[in-house]
Amino acid sequence: MMLLSVLQANAVVLDIEANLRTVDHAAQRSAQAGADLLLTPELFPVGYAPLRLRSELDPEALPAIRTRLADIARRNRIALVYSLPAPVRAEPAPANEPRWHISATLVDAQGREILDYAKVHLFGGEERKAFAAAAEPPAVVDFQGIRTSLLVCYDIEFPEAARAAAARGAELLLVPTALSAGFEAVPQVLIRARALESQLNVAYANHCGNEDAYTFGGGSVVAGPDGVLLAEAGDGPALLFAEVGTAAVNAARDEVPYLRERRPGLYREWEARLPQEPGRPGDAPA
Amino acid sequence: MMLLSVLQANAVVLDIEANLRTVDHAAQRSAQAGADLLLTPELFPVGYAPLRLRSELDPEALPAIRTRLADIARRNRIALVYSLPAPVRAEPAPANEPRWHISATLVDAQGREILDYAKVHLFGGEERKAFAAAAEPPAVVDFQGIRTSLLVCYDIEFPEAARAAAARGAELLLVPTALSAGFEAVPQVLIRARALESQLNVAYANHCGNEDAYTFGGGSVVAGPDGVLLAEAGDGPALLFAEVGTAAVNAARDEVPYLRERRPGLYREWEARLPQEPGRPGDAPA
Repeated sequence: MMLLSVLQANAVVLDIEANLRTVDHAAQRSAQAGADLLLTPELFPVGYAPLRLRSELDPEALPAIRTRLADIARRNRIALVYSLPAPVRAEPAPANEPRWHISATLVDAQGREILDYAKVHLFGGEERKAFAAAAEPPAVVDFQGIRTSLLVCYDIEFPEAARAAAARGAELLLVPTALSAGFEAVPQVLIRARALESQLNVAYANHCGNEDAYTFGGGSVVAGPDGVLLAEAGDGPALLFAEVGTAAVNAARDEVPYLRERRPGLYREWEARLPQEPGRPGDAPA
Repeated sequence: MMLLSVLQANAVVLDIEANLRTVDHAAQRSAQAGADLLLTPELFPVGYAPLRLRSELDPEALPAIRTRLADIARRNRIALVYSLPAPVRAEPAPANEPRWHISATLVDAQGREILDYAKVHLFGGEERKAFAAAAEPPAVVDFQGIRTSLLVCYDIEFPEAARAAAARGAELLLVPTALSAGFEAVPQVLIRARALESQLNVAYANHCGNEDAYTFGGGSVVAGPDGVLLAEAGDGPALLFAEVGTAAVNAARDEVPYLRERRPGLYREWEARLPQEPGRPGDAPA
């Protein structure tokens, strides 16, 4: 078992000092409460504002922000999941193409990066103008005996993304998000379903309040492998705590063996038999 | 728009006369209320009792049962979805292998079969002793202007099965089920999620009460393409009504284009990169 804490908070766009103070304070409170890991929202250290990030954020500033986040983890002796823009690693993109992914990183309580992930499903026109969609599946790392994986925001609304993590052994999915107000069915229905259908723990950390033109609805949740909410936030700032572990995962998988009873060979064949749609959006390599 | 009705009822195992009377009566009430289609639970005409069906049901009786169900549709001038054992069509199975699938059939108000489907994901040891798992994806038919598809029970708990229907254009998924009491998260979480993540209507018709050793929890639902429940039953006999159509489907798909923003090429590649598990249950062709 480990105690997970989930930060729901309002970021100030491009006020990195203020946002790091918020993370540091949450890390301190979480560690004092005995938490092993603090999950923070999507792009929280820089604020969620894709077009302003593209035009105003100096890419040279990013390594120092990552160092400071690692310091926060080390100083407070707590593992931390943060989300930041991260450079596209592939061959140099054409001059006008976005050069950043939206990434999530897990650092341990010594500040070492032990897992990272870049968002595969971008949401909406502004994200697509500012960021490049990634193409790698979520990886899994053993964190304190729990196989842990990362997705970002819109990714988790696609059952295929959570399945990819589950198929790689994930027992805990940590999901920084930036979900606008009005989409409460995402945490209340889809997150619970992702947890239940692959029988793993899912934690989903959202912004609240306004950041530039965006209004975030909060509603962060932690769901257990039976689909039940272990913790949920309202629409204001919150720090959620939930115990997550492998015993409930194993019990759920013993009762109804969803992952064993999938028929991936058939699904591949079914998909291959679909009429091909040339230029189908989202199907091209990023 | 069309008006859908959903029968939740208790079947009497192998009392086909009693069960057909229940269906006939529901068809009559549904038609009087103006419904266009009546959805009934899994294996309802024969009762849900896999092992007794295998040992006691005369396969020769099935064509006559289908004829009588078509008569019920025609006489009441209402389309009908029913679920029955159906012979495995492939080459003759070895003598001890199950020779029936669990099927679902849509007949129109003239009693003509316009769509059928055989269950791909069998649930539990008794079903697997009595029935063979099918391997064909759900097909889609235009029913009164709504692209309609069928799944059966456990199938819908797998996001891949509903996606296969959605990828083939489904706007309405009709799902006969036999869900034991204690699994209320299936209709309350998974059915809502299937509807929301593929932005289609899902109707789920369950048994209630006891049939032999099984206790069914009822809880039949109809969910709209925004994941909201349009109708839901308690744990006793019920006839639910809900209006379903394409306008809400189109509105949801315009707002958040989940189906267009899937990345099936990536998912295939991710799946192909998984370590192969020889003999993985459920992955073999049925």
